[in-house]
Amino acid sequence: MTGNNNIVVVGSVALDCIETPFGRRSSSLGGSAVYFSWASSLFAPVSLVGVVGKDFPKEYISDMDKRGIDTASLKVAEGRTFRWEGKYEYDLNVAHTLKTELNVFQDFKPKLTAVQKNAEYLFLANIDPELQLKVVNEMNSPRVIALDTMNFWIENKREELMETLKKVNYLLVNDAEARQLGESSNLTTACNKIFRMGPRIIVVKQGEYGVTVFFSERKKIEIFTAPSVPLESVADPTGAGDSFAGAFMGYLASRGRVENSVLRQAVILGSVVASYTVEGFSIDMLKKITIEDVEERFKYLKKISHFESIKDGLK
Amino acid sequence: MTGNNNIVVVGSVALDCIETPFGRRSSSLGGSAVYFSWASSLFAPVSLVGVVGKDFPKEYISDMDKRGIDTASLKVAEGRTFRWEGKYEYDLNVAHTLKTELNVFQDFKPKLTAVQKNAEYLFLANIDPELQLKVVNEMNSPRVIALDTMNFWIENKREELMETLKKVNYLLVNDAEARQLGESSNLTTACNKIFRMGPRIIVVKQGEYGVTVFFSERKKIEIFTAPSVPLESVADPTGAGDSFAGAFMGYLASRGRVENSVLRQAVILGSVVASYTVEGFSIDMLKKITIEDVEERFKYLKKISHFESIKDGLK
Repeated sequence: MTGNNNIVVVGSVALDCIETPFGRRSSSLGGSAVYFSWASSLFAPVSLVGVVGKDFPKEYISDMDKRGIDTASLKVAEGRTFRWEGKYEYDLNVAHTLKTELNVFQDFKPKLTAVQKNAEYLFLANIDPELQLKVVNEMNSPRVIALDTMNFWIENKREELMETLKKVNYLLVNDAEARQLGESSNLTTACNKIFRMGPRIIVVKQGEYGVTVFFSERKKIEIFTAPSVPLESVADPTGAGDSFAGAFMGYLASRGRVENSVLRQAVILGSVVASYTVEGFSIDMLKKITIEDVEERFKYLKKISHFESIKDGLK
Repeated sequence: MTGNNNIVVVGSVALDCIETPFGRRSSSLGGSAVYFSWASSLFAPVSLVGVVGKDFPKEYISDMDKRGIDTASLKVAEGRTFRWEGKYEYDLNVAHTLKTELNVFQDFKPKLTAVQKNAEYLFLANIDPELQLKVVNEMNSPRVIALDTMNFWIENKREELMETLKKVNYLLVNDAEARQLGESSNLTTACNKIFRMGPRIIVVKQGEYGVTVFFSERKKIEIFTAPSVPLESVADPTGAGDSFAGAFMGYLASRGRVENSVLRQAVILGSVVASYTVEGFSIDMLKKITIEDVEERFKYLKKISHFESIKDGLK
């Protein structure tokens, strides 16, 4: 095989215990690679590289198989699955980690199949940058390598992260992470600095305030600002960022083109799918929504962000 | 006179002493009514109701006169002008008040001329809600009454504010103030509650994340999300909100219509003019920019927020 439109995601598969002001859920399916895969599979075939323990419910895997998510590289190892326990207060923007048990994830060594190595789209979810680099080096020549990271790696493995970023085309991070990585309180200044680290597209996720994308094209920087879907009820914000990334990459893969207009649509679709994710716990909503639901909110975002040109001038 | 397109603004006129990481300015022209008037006068005639002391530099008044800002109701009282001393750290979103001297502003009793009472657009800048109500009651029948307020009044004069809000059409507040006033961490929920207090349009200013507007029309709530202009250098954020309000109201008055499409354009123009204001200290940039500059950034915001519909569907 010399190339295909498949997407490979490498990241965590977890059992989450989450408390929000709107409910509590124990041992529910979570992890960055899971949210990514469920979102991505709305648009294009995806295969997941990860590890779980013997305690991982078999129906979670069969659900993914039924969805068409390739789980051939989801290893079942001796021991317990990665577990995360978190709590959100009324301000749902901040997750408070109560407990992290790495378990089998501690010794995670991503192994890709021959088919996966030929994938055209690679998403490196938020894991150790050394592992991310290892995966990049195993790939043949993907068209798009996208990476997510977090404050922990920016602080503690900055050098390794820099090595990995050199090989990355797209960086997807939160607003605070972008400013931290680019060492500036000004987002534009921070992104100018990040461009020199490798990526040529920086997707800055700003939660309920939307997404700002910085494109570096022929030494010129272009910006795209996308709104988020205003929601009246957010049940559980977990997985918003990974759902965003999944829909974003899924749509790109489905179009097979990464020109600016397609990228902008991909960002909007990321926003839409993330908005559904947070309306339920775990992947409940990702399982439920259809492509028609996605199209509906896409049109809604178009409507609420539209404004007309001033045709007769301001004078 | 039975009606005109004039705008009346009631608010503070101040001498500011401001320190930011990019410089320091003493006794410079400031105050909500000043920023509002300079921004507004780009689009429509405006008259200012306020008070200054004997120490207020005469050239600040003659500059306004030259600009066409009506200063007939800017009273020069015995004593010193209202003074505010503030500091911004590298995170320019938060102003730290170092000193406030109310001086002549303490006994401010807004007095409107007969012409002002007939104005069609009234902006009540962030002052004591009791004073705001007094002004509203002096007006004949303005088409639009817009009000700004802040956490201090929401906490300490909630009842008086509620009385004033009953007479107000448009509320312009910051994100945190909207949530505080509507007593919900969810912005949509908060605004639903604010609608029951009186206003039918709520403009939520979100700083560098843009503006979200909630319209209540025939019992249905409509939303408009507007981006801000991404800036690489912000010299002094003071006056951003009042410049926004000035351009917003100025454009509405210039069009003489307040239909949804005009309101959306007014929000974008507010964003544009605020973006210029913060690139300089005091009203430096507001004095400098032309209507062509405004048109240029309007087009820029259109460009960076545009995305195409998915014509062939997602299937």
